[in-house]
Amino acid sequence: MQTLEAINSRKSIRRYLDTPVEKEKIQELLEAAIRAPSAMNKQCWRFVAITDKETIANLAKCQVVINGWIKDVPAVIVVCADPKDSSDHNGLPYYMWDAALAMHNLVLAATDMGLGTCYLAAYKEDKVKELLGIPDNIRVVCMTPLGYPTEKRSVGEKLMKAVAGSSKRKPLEEVAHWERW
Amino acid sequence: MQTLEAINSRKSIRRYLDTPVEKEKIQELLEAAIRAPSAMNKQCWRFVAITDKETIANLAKCQVVINGWIKDVPAVIVVCADPKDSSDHNGLPYYMWDAALAMHNLVLAATDMGLGTCYLAAYKEDKVKELLGIPDNIRVVCMTPLGYPTEKRSVGEKLMKAVAGSSKRKPLEEVAHWERW
Repeated sequence: MQTLEAINSRKSIRRYLDTPVEKEKIQELLEAAIRAPSAMNKQCWRFVAITDKETIANLAKCQVVINGWIKDVPAVIVVCADPKDSSDHNGLPYYMWDAALAMHNLVLAATDMGLGTCYLAAYKEDKVKELLGIPDNIRVVCMTPLGYPTEKRSVGEKLMKAVAGSSKRKPLEEVAHWERW
Repeated sequence: MQTLEAINSRKSIRRYLDTPVEKEKIQELLEAAIRAPSAMNKQCWRFVAITDKETIANLAKCQVVINGWIKDVPAVIVVCADPKDSSDHNGLPYYMWDAALAMHNLVLAATDMGLGTCYLAAYKEDKVKELLGIPDNIRVVCMTPLGYPTEKRSVGEKLMKAVAGSSKRKPLEEVAHWERW
């Protein structure tokens, strides 16, 4: 798939086939993730790739109720960051930035492979850390289900559409300036 | 260009031809940027696209000395964020995340078009805001030069290679876990 097609066709998928995701594909996606650039090449990103049904069911319990649908997905990638492995220039936490770039590589590569993803951040971080044995010094910054999408829309997806709004974007003129603000 | 090729071939470019970047291409890149997903679709990202030579020369003066080479680049995209237009789940500033996704779309789309980019965050934010008239409530979270790359390496690039290390990545086994940490 062409780069722009991946960028433009990526969307939040909240309904998946039962078909498992091949371990080699998950591996390829993680390899794409770590090609991202990072502050001083410190690579703060850390990942937990989960395919175990019981763990996924327990992970679903750590989410806000509206994201409970992830209980049935075939795989989840949990994205973590080690805050000390990045920069804090101008007081900004660039570990969020670096981890985001890695995850977006993964998400676009998944789109390219016909796999669905959905950025999720509304979970209880302490519960996720306890469940997965994530060390105290590591932040859980995001996660995504991973699987082959179906067309059928779940109740969760309909609700989320209502809550999070459509895929519409503000027009460029509203967010971009030329030469100065 | 295929998505994975863009992901794998993207690298930090610190030396550019004098050739101007077409305004339509910058526009296309910004359109790719705003296709990124964001917390509750709030789209906190804001951009300033600069091609004016004098502004770019002044912008170079806001950088740490080692990034002064941007004085000669044909264009710069300054990426900003409105922190109130995002989420702070688990106390994390997702405006950094959302803006990073948008910028990575732009960077990968630029790679696809044969344009070079380089993530830069080591600038004096207050000076950049003053120069570009960026409002108080907006954060300047990153910027990139934009232009047609040359092979020739600048002194800055050689220095940066020495400081920021190579494009080598930690092996996947070191940053990724299966099923649990």
